[in-house]
Amino acid sequence: MERVKTGITELDGMLCGGLLPNTANLLEGAPGTGKTTLGMQFIYNGITLYNEPGLILTFEEFPQQYYRDAASFGWDFRDLERDEKLKIIMTSPEVSQLDLEEVGGLIETTAKEIGARRVLVDSLSHFARLTDDPVKLRSIQYSFINALKREGLTSVLTKENDAILGEVYGEDSATFLADSYILLRYVEIESTIQKALLVLKFRGSDHAKDIRQFRITSQGIEVQARFEGQEGILSGSPRRSMSDSFVDAFVRR
Amino acid sequence: MERVKTGITELDGMLCGGLLPNTANLLEGAPGTGKTTLGMQFIYNGITLYNEPGLILTFEEFPQQYYRDAASFGWDFRDLERDEKLKIIMTSPEVSQLDLEEVGGLIETTAKEIGARRVLVDSLSHFARLTDDPVKLRSIQYSFINALKREGLTSVLTKENDAILGEVYGEDSATFLADSYILLRYVEIESTIQKALLVLKFRGSDHAKDIRQFRITSQGIEVQARFEGQEGILSGSPRRSMSDSFVDAFVRR
Amino acid sequence: MERVKTGITELDGMLCGGLLPNTANLLEGAPGTGKTTLGMQFIYNGITLYNEPGLILTFEEFPQQYYRDAASFGWDFRDLERDEKLKIIMTSPEVSQLDLEEVGGLIETTAKEIGARRVLVDSLSHFARLTDDPVKLRSIQYSFINALKREGLTSVLTKENDAILGEVYGEDSATFLADSYILLRYVEIESTIQKALLVLKFRGSDHAKDIRQFRITSQGIEVQARFEGQEGILSGSPRRSMSDSFVDAFVRR
Amino acid sequence: MERVKTGITELDGMLCGGLLPNTANLLEGAPGTGKTTLGMQFIYNGITLYNEPGLILTFEEFPQQYYRDAASFGWDFRDLERDEKLKIIMTSPEVSQLDLEEVGGLIETTAKEIGARRVLVDSLSHFARLTDDPVKLRSIQYSFINALKREGLTSVLTKENDAILGEVYGEDSATFLADSYILLRYVEIESTIQKALLVLKFRGSDHAKDIRQFRITSQGIEVQARFEGQEGILSGSPRRSMSDSFVDAFVRR
Amino acid sequence: MERVKTGITELDGMLCGGLLPNTANLLEGAPGTGKTTLGMQFIYNGITLYNEPGLILTFEEFPQQYYRDAASFGWDFRDLERDEKLKIIMTSPEVSQLDLEEVGGLIETTAKEIGARRVLVDSLSHFARLTDDPVKLRSIQYSFINALKREGLTSVLTKENDAILGEVYGEDSATFLADSYILLRYVEIESTIQKALLVLKFRGSDHAKDIRQFRITSQGIEVQARFEGQEGILSGSPRRSMSDSFVDAFVRR
Amino acid sequence: MERVKTGITELDGMLCGGLLPNTANLLEGAPGTGKTTLGMQFIYNGITLYNEPGLILTFEEFPQQYYRDAASFGWDFRDLERDEKLKIIMTSPEVSQLDLEEVGGLIETTAKEIGARRVLVDSLSHFARLTDDPVKLRSIQYSFINALKREGLTSVLTKENDAILGEVYGEDSATFLADSYILLRYVEIESTIQKALLVLKFRGSDHAKDIRQFRITSQGIEVQARFEGQEGILSGSPRRSMSDSFVDAFVRR
Repeated sequence: MERVKTGITELDGMLCGGLLPNTANLLEGAPGTGKTTLGMQFIYNGITLYNEPGLILTFEEFPQQYYRDAASFGWDFRDLERDEKLKIIMTSPEVSQLDLEEVGGLIETTAKEIGARRVLVDSLSHFARLTDDPVKLRSIQYSFINALKREGLTSVLTKENDAILGEVYGEDSATFLADSYILLRYVEIESTIQKALLVLKFRGSDHAKDIRQFRITSQGIEVQARFEGQEGILSGSPRRSMSDSFVDAFVRR
Repeated sequence: MERVKTGITELDGMLCGGLLPNTANLLEGAPGTGKTTLGMQFIYNGITLYNEPGLILTFEEFPQQYYRDAASFGWDFRDLERDEKLKIIMTSPEVSQLDLEEVGGLIETTAKEIGARRVLVDSLSHFARLTDDPVKLRSIQYSFINALKREGLTSVLTKENDAILGEVYGEDSATFLADSYILLRYVEIESTIQKALLVLKFRGSDHAKDIRQFRITSQGIEVQARFEGQEGILSGSPRRSMSDSFVDAFVRR
Repeated sequence: MERVKTGITELDGMLCGGLLPNTANLLEGAPGTGKTTLGMQFIYNGITLYNEPGLILTFEEFPQQYYRDAASFGWDFRDLERDEKLKIIMTSPEVSQLDLEEVGGLIETTAKEIGARRVLVDSLSHFARLTDDPVKLRSIQYSFINALKREGLTSVLTKENDAILGEVYGEDSATFLADSYILLRYVEIESTIQKALLVLKFRGSDHAKDIRQFRITSQGIEVQARFEGQEGILSGSPRRSMSDSFVDAFVRR
Repeated sequence: MERVKTGITELDGMLCGGLLPNTANLLEGAPGTGKTTLGMQFIYNGITLYNEPGLILTFEEFPQQYYRDAASFGWDFRDLERDEKLKIIMTSPEVSQLDLEEVGGLIETTAKEIGARRVLVDSLSHFARLTDDPVKLRSIQYSFINALKREGLTSVLTKENDAILGEVYGEDSATFLADSYILLRYVEIESTIQKALLVLKFRGSDHAKDIRQFRITSQGIEVQARFEGQEGILSGSPRRSMSDSFVDAFVRR
Repeated sequence: MERVKTGITELDGMLCGGLLPNTANLLEGAPGTGKTTLGMQFIYNGITLYNEPGLILTFEEFPQQYYRDAASFGWDFRDLERDEKLKIIMTSPEVSQLDLEEVGGLIETTAKEIGARRVLVDSLSHFARLTDDPVKLRSIQYSFINALKREGLTSVLTKENDAILGEVYGEDSATFLADSYILLRYVEIESTIQKALLVLKFRGSDHAKDIRQFRITSQGIEVQARFEGQEGILSGSPRRSMSDSFVDAFVRR
Repeated sequence: MERVKTGITELDGMLCGGLLPNTANLLEGAPGTGKTTLGMQFIYNGITLYNEPGLILTFEEFPQQYYRDAASFGWDFRDLERDEKLKIIMTSPEVSQLDLEEVGGLIETTAKEIGARRVLVDSLSHFARLTDDPVKLRSIQYSFINALKREGLTSVLTKENDAILGEVYGEDSATFLADSYILLRYVEIESTIQKALLVLKFRGSDHAKDIRQFRITSQGIEVQARFEGQEGILSGSPRRSMSDSFVDAFVRR
């Protein structure tokens, strides 16, 4: 099956080749885990490696912030915009929702102009401001997600999670609506805060089940080997497994 | 006693032959655990293995989504619909409830037309939108479940659970109303997210009590052996049992 | 002292002979733990072993459901009803409460007609629908319980508990009102969900303090030996005790 | 200092001789832990061992229930009432509060008539029905407690705690108002539910700090030795301490 | 720097000499941990050891209660009041707040009359009754604390904490406002409830960081050595550390 | 890249040289962890080591409190104010927000007058008083942060956290808005409360991932080595790792 590659080799491997075209992919994490970085990398690699133009819908940060953040990884977003490969649209959930409902709205028009195939929505969490009613919110998010699909876009939707460590809750129904669900987590191991990436759900495809370590380098997200000899990684505060502890103390010494 | 086989051999084994006819069977799980897949497999196997036509009531996803999802397992739902063995009805809890209360409503008529014996309700959780009052909700769900039974249908009702890991709560009274209650859970073992299936309740029949590992393959749900040497599996974050840890470290090495 | 035997030998042993006459006995458990089965067995054994006719008050399920459920254990409830040893009354908390307050109400009349000595109330949890005020609820439940005592009935009152596993809370004041309090719990041991039974409170009598394993067989509830070598059984997710783990690993091997 | 002995030898020992005269003593526990039994024993021993007549204020149970419960321990409360050594007053928080505010109210009059020195209030928790405002509740409870002191009574006030096991919270401000605070808890040890008693607070006197096991025998409460080799007793679900586990497994065998 | 000594030698040692003059010092603990005792000792020692007269503001207990409580430690508060070294003012948060805002209010006048240098406020928690709004409460507490400072008083403010054991939360913003923050906690060790004292915050000075055991003797608070070989003391339910457990079991025996 | 050094050598090392210019840096901690001290040190070092004048915006404490607190570390803030290198502005969230929106407001004017490059906002938590609506609060905080950036200021924003120990939640959306996020935590190790510092997020730069111990000396914050041999540091209540425990008990002895 055709795949929409993220261009992050190890992540594409975990996804058995990449995301599926025309799907909505949720990317959840605590502040600083690298959601926006991974999302920008998805867009940047799409343009530069696979010739798939992309949109960024931002509901809070100014485009300048994306220029700066991207620049710190050596990605020239201004240049890509000048080349009409990328458009950063600063909007609001209200406006973007209405816009997508009408024919020839700004998002549709822009997507068509640059031939966009990918979109980063940063972040889906801002939709919560539209209503206090979880049922209505779910319905709005569902419409929004489907509208992006109708435009032929493969979307990465970031989702904020307050919990630095601790229990993992899906928290809102977006996790049920999305076609895939990738979780970024902090993990404390040996007095260090490491980062974990996990593909929890991937509709229509197999995927890796292991919890991988990753880091943010000067080139962006780099997914590494899976954790070893730890129990309870997703709690954020794992225990070294008992048998490994014995081996550490008595055998490897 | 006559059984309504799921066609998933190991699961039918856990159920001492299969579900009971004319019962309501709750299937609960977090996003991505495979609730809808298992439900579609129940319907697909019913039609193709046991010649029992089936309905799918969907309260959110379009039929197209089911066609696509089923196709990824090699199940041709369009074809089954054309053969009048399957009908996917996109409706709402409100409408379906009213519909079932009148003689000759759409669901009843459709069920009769194709001679449906099975129904997948995806998902029962959407009934929560009908009322904030848990007492009223319970009464509505009870009526709905009984209406399906009156139509001679054996139902699988999916139920969404927000908790990725952590404490297991029944959360709503559907667990008391249903004739059986099957739980799908994520379990972190050796830095990998595995999936567990458990039959917690089965009115009128014995059933397996062990917690089984399962995976979603290209042919659908495949139930495997039970977990071994782990404590606290249902917490989602089990500990390797101490005696097994000793054996791992000192004996098996 | 005279005892009202449940007829479940091991349970009567735990109760030092059986329940006390004219008392209200709370039976709490999660969905599928066997509350209704134990309650039906109390009624069935009363009639067939001790010649004590019985009532079943049901606030949700139809009598047919009890016929079916009982039949799966080989208990012919229709037959007992025909013999005027059993009456299943489908009612509501509202109606039953008013009914019991007047002289010659339905419940009183029926109880007298068949000479009922026992009653199963399935479930007391439905009283929660009468009021949101816990103080008023307590007062209503207290009146209801006392009315049953006035009729000379020994009652078993089932109580629903949402928690599949985890912390044990009494949750409502019925636990303070009842003369005895029996708890049914799920317990995960060696990758299997087992069932535990515990007598927590028994006013006016000594009782066993150990936590017993039980199972539901084709003859109904069968209470077995107590658990061994486990800590934290009531959490539902016990640990094998450390000293037993050592013995398992190093001594018994 | 003069002491108001409970007559339960080991408990008086923990209290360095007994309660202090003219104080309010809170006795908290989950359903079935023996609050009322201990309270009745305090009254019974007061009358029969120390010639101190006593009152029982009940806000829910009928006097008959106390007669019955007391009789099961061999205490003849009817007889004591006939001898004018005991009075059981069934009242309500509302009425008793007003009654104590006026000169010559029922409680005052009754206390004077029999020369009462002790009172059991069963239970203080019923005051919660008077107001939803914790500040007002505290003020009402404070007035009530002080009114009892003005009558020259040493009071035992039972307090209901919903939690069967788990975290210990004082939950309401009565714990700050009372002169002493005794806690009864369930503790699961070796697959058995045992009972623990603890003096947490004792204004104006030293007291034992250890957590004692106790049981309810046919003669009432019997306080036993303290627990040994367990960590986390107050959680209700203790762990056998590690060093004792080693000794159990390797040394004592 | 000049210090306001508590006169409890070990505590003054922990505070590097004592409290700082003109500061507000929060003293938090569960019921029975000894907050009021420590506060009275601060006042008593101030008068008798350092010739610094003191006030006690009480929002609930009558002065008689303080006379009695103090007497049980051999402190004659009535005598100190007669000598005009101590004044116990029974008031309310409302009144005391207004009083401190006007020139020549009762508190100011009394403080001046006896030349008060110290004040015990028992307890700051009663301010919660003034408003439900945490922002307003913080502002009121801040004004109150500053008013005491303007009077040249060094204050000890007791703060009630509901949790007998378990998680430690600051709970209200007083912990941010106060110049120092001392925490009293129950700790279960070896089946005994011990008491722990900890200086968590001390603005403008160094302080001991260790968690000390303390007890209440017939002379008042006595701070002892720090705990040894325990992990998780502040949880109230510590574990004996593993290496100490090994040593206990295999080495020291 | 140019860096805004904190002047705390080890912290600048963790930040790969220092903060980034024109950014908003969140500094979160429980009461007494040293947030304000670190913030004042950032301002003081800016002026005295790098010749970058600074502002302090205070929403609660009077300037006098900062003079006193700074003096205890040997920093003469009055003198710096006289030299027009520092300005402490006592204001409110309401006023400062309006002020920053107009041209030539007080903050802007003051910043320009002294050529301010740095600002300490103490604390951002006070913005919570402006609205109960988290969406509006986020928008207000975002505007405020951006206004400070427009003035060319690098800000340190303190954020109060109620939890003394226990789960780490970001709690409000400021953690998503800020360019960096530094967490100060209490950690109980060997019966002592130690302090931990962690850089959790740093937009546009690499940073150290380890959890460092720090203390507050007479010269201010001093960041030390990272913790060793502990698991679960961020829970506040770590366990000594098992293999280190073995080594402690059996090898190092």
